[in-house]
Amino acid sequence: MASTVFIQSPFPPKSLNKSTNTHFVRSFKLPVSISLKPRTAFQKRFSVRAGLIEPDGGKLVDLHVPEPERELKKREAASLPWVKLTRIDLQWVHVLSEGWASPLTGFMRESEFLQTLHFNSLRLDDGSFVNMSVPIVLAIDDSQKERIVESNKVTLVDSDDNPVAILTNIEIYQHPKEERIARTWGTTAPGLPYVEETITNAGNWLIGGDLEVIEPIKYHDGLDRFRLSPVELRQEFERRKADAVFAFQLRNPVHNGHALLMTDTRRRLLQMGYKNPILLLHPLGGYTKADDVPLSWRMKQHEKVLEDGVLDPETTVVSIFPSPMHYAGPTEVQWHAKARINAGANFYIVGRDPAGMGHPIEKRDLYDADHGKKVLSMAPGLERLNILPFRVAAYDQTQGKMAFFDPTRAQDFLFISGTKMRSLAKNKENPPDGFMCPGGWKVLVEYYDSLTPSENGRVHEVVPA
Amino acid sequence: MASTVFIQSPFPPKSLNKSTNTHFVRSFKLPVSISLKPRTAFQKRFSVRAGLIEPDGGKLVDLHVPEPERELKKREAASLPWVKLTRIDLQWVHVLSEGWASPLTGFMRESEFLQTLHFNSLRLDDGSFVNMSVPIVLAIDDSQKERIVESNKVTLVDSDDNPVAILTNIEIYQHPKEERIARTWGTTAPGLPYVEETITNAGNWLIGGDLEVIEPIKYHDGLDRFRLSPVELRQEFERRKADAVFAFQLRNPVHNGHALLMTDTRRRLLQMGYKNPILLLHPLGGYTKADDVPLSWRMKQHEKVLEDGVLDPETTVVSIFPSPMHYAGPTEVQWHAKARINAGANFYIVGRDPAGMGHPIEKRDLYDADHGKKVLSMAPGLERLNILPFRVAAYDQTQGKMAFFDPTRAQDFLFISGTKMRSLAKNKENPPDGFMCPGGWKVLVEYYDSLTPSENGRVHEVVPA
Repeated sequence: MASTVFIQSPFPPKSLNKSTNTHFVRSFKLPVSISLKPRTAFQKRFSVRAGLIEPDGGKLVDLHVPEPERELKKREAASLPWVKLTRIDLQWVHVLSEGWASPLTGFMRESEFLQTLHFNSLRLDDGSFVNMSVPIVLAIDDSQKERIVESNKVTLVDSDDNPVAILTNIEIYQHPKEERIARTWGTTAPGLPYVEETITNAGNWLIGGDLEVIEPIKYHDGLDRFRLSPVELRQEFERRKADAVFAFQLRNPVHNGHALLMTDTRRRLLQMGYKNPILLLHPLGGYTKADDVPLSWRMKQHEKVLEDGVLDPETTVVSIFPSPMHYAGPTEVQWHAKARINAGANFYIVGRDPAGMGHPIEKRDLYDADHGKKVLSMAPGLERLNILPFRVAAYDQTQGKMAFFDPTRAQDFLFISGTKMRSLAKNKENPPDGFMCPGGWKVLVEYYDSLTPSENGRVHEVVPA
Repeated sequence: MASTVFIQSPFPPKSLNKSTNTHFVRSFKLPVSISLKPRTAFQKRFSVRAGLIEPDGGKLVDLHVPEPERELKKREAASLPWVKLTRIDLQWVHVLSEGWASPLTGFMRESEFLQTLHFNSLRLDDGSFVNMSVPIVLAIDDSQKERIVESNKVTLVDSDDNPVAILTNIEIYQHPKEERIARTWGTTAPGLPYVEETITNAGNWLIGGDLEVIEPIKYHDGLDRFRLSPVELRQEFERRKADAVFAFQLRNPVHNGHALLMTDTRRRLLQMGYKNPILLLHPLGGYTKADDVPLSWRMKQHEKVLEDGVLDPETTVVSIFPSPMHYAGPTEVQWHAKARINAGANFYIVGRDPAGMGHPIEKRDLYDADHGKKVLSMAPGLERLNILPFRVAAYDQTQGKMAFFDPTRAQDFLFISGTKMRSLAKNKENPPDGFMCPGGWKVLVEYYDSLTPSENGRVHEVVPA
């Protein structure tokens, strides 16, 4: 289990040092001016704006109780029926509280749940649509439902029974598990990680309502300072005078193919006339499946990538995206993109098979590798976001580095699979020069080295993209 | 199998006589004027219009080859690679050819297929959405795909190898069966009738393109004259000077509860200020599952209901909707509603659990009985349609007739289930007086009587709604 988000890892990485911290979120001012001249077809769906892209619904949701009222809310919380949150529920409270899911103001009621399942979007009062592709719901069981009786509010408590939030104007409705799974994943095969972790054994009811979050959610894992909220990210982009923000979602170590892609995207944006495109390198920090590299190790690896100069710290913001991972392919990639609009990104890089995985019981990928980018480009509510499809990078043996794959000389390229990468790192062998910066590779070797032999037996498929 | 659509039933009903025909589609002129005064909240989403509701995309699609060009097209068809249509494929060609699925101009290409699966809607060039919730696709297998080679067109032929249509500008893409089933039905449980009939054994590829239909599709089953196209229905509504058209989709015999609902809807529309609301009683005529009453018997039953005066022929148009049935609940009801917009209906009656059925392997209904009407009321592209939720009717023992259920005196009401209705009809017993008109009931008794004993053993669950 990727438990490091909540609990100190049994093999904690050395904490990221202060100089790295300033690398990650540095307030470097470039002498830029915001260009307002029209640009090419590349982003013709946009009118170029002087400010950052507007959040969904026009206003970033902030569900935190203002500080002066917190004591009062805590007392109120103590008087209400309560529902205990799992660690993944708590991650969703975090996500909701900071407005990543704007304009959602809490766990979904049935109307939002049904719109999400059927339309991957929510209709606003003005008739416009925002994207919303994964259900953000809270399951309760029969005994919890009985405990609530006629109350219009419940207190949500963490695993230590500390009150985290109050859910108000609640609505309790049936949890149609099979239908939720089928419509979200496009399969009901046993073995979907998020399903087994959060749905299979969950209660038969869902409870929706508006959240009042008593205090900002913290994990005390040494990484909280990298968990910038959408408000903080927007402030950072404004401080840097970004005139374009391009987001890169990832849940794996960064290799030089990724880096090439990101630097090439910046080059293209500059060519288009942008003066100061900023990269949001945005590793997912919530629940991931057991064989993904844990967040703490990934952050250490990302740090090395910046230290080694593979990515330019001056034009890169590294921050943690607090969402749990669904592994729901074309459905989930919309959520990944939509949340980044709320954080100020107006360009989104999408690769092959985003948020995909192997089929849990058949010997094939669960999703068509191209469906993610196709669905993303057609999704209601994402019209304002410029989708940048990933170009495939592979190891070019003639150049001894990662390069964009050229099908006219396919024989020159080496695709280094996740399995290959893992077996190299496990055996402390090196990949070909130029596949990953040496510092980053060393972190990976250390991670696999840190796994106990018994874990070594069952874990890890390090997927490189 | 409900084979009567294509093949003469082994127990053909007497053909509907001519006087009934004029009942069904009668050109009765009422001295009405089109009211333009604003109406109540009941339909506040509408501006009242002088004409019928516009079809999706603004223009009704007609995919028939103009008569002078047919011979030429037949010669072209003979020169092309061909794909053989199943009888359900042919029903979809029929549906597409007459514009029920406007603005679709043929079997879906991948972009339309993906939008349907994920968003239940298609984005038009102007940025607006039309609803499209069920994939209208044509599956081919590897050998058919190979036969097409590099051709840009294929000829679609019927079971007798007669050319039916040419599909142009074709696109062949993978048929992700499991994902299609999961996202359309919200389950992948074995035993879904449409899935077993059309998907499980279908090819692994889908072929999309624009249709050129050589001649109007006919079934030669004595019912073709009731298969009015959207154009013909619109002409009929205009001839009757309808200022509101309310559609009632059904695939079962009409009992007096249905009739009450339809007459009550008309009463409400008149109260709202409409002068001449016309009912479109629109039985589904395509594929239905084995235990539904076949179309020919249903049409005979509907005829009796009009003859017995339960519904008023002067304000009722009975016609056959050529679509096959998916039994996909909240997903499919959108299709049922959307197609009726194209036929000119601006009001749609929706009942409990529309297009629903029992879960194929669990002892429960597949869908929440209220999800259909909720999803319908929120569906993108159906904003122009006024949804009229069904009020539950049951047999009121104090009045000896079907009446709207009154929960304050629940004990007075009798719910007559499909199972009950079937066992009564099979045993030639009568339901309580006032449940169904005697002529209609007699048709049902005859139908069950006509089934051979061996069929009697396995068939029929007559669901009354």
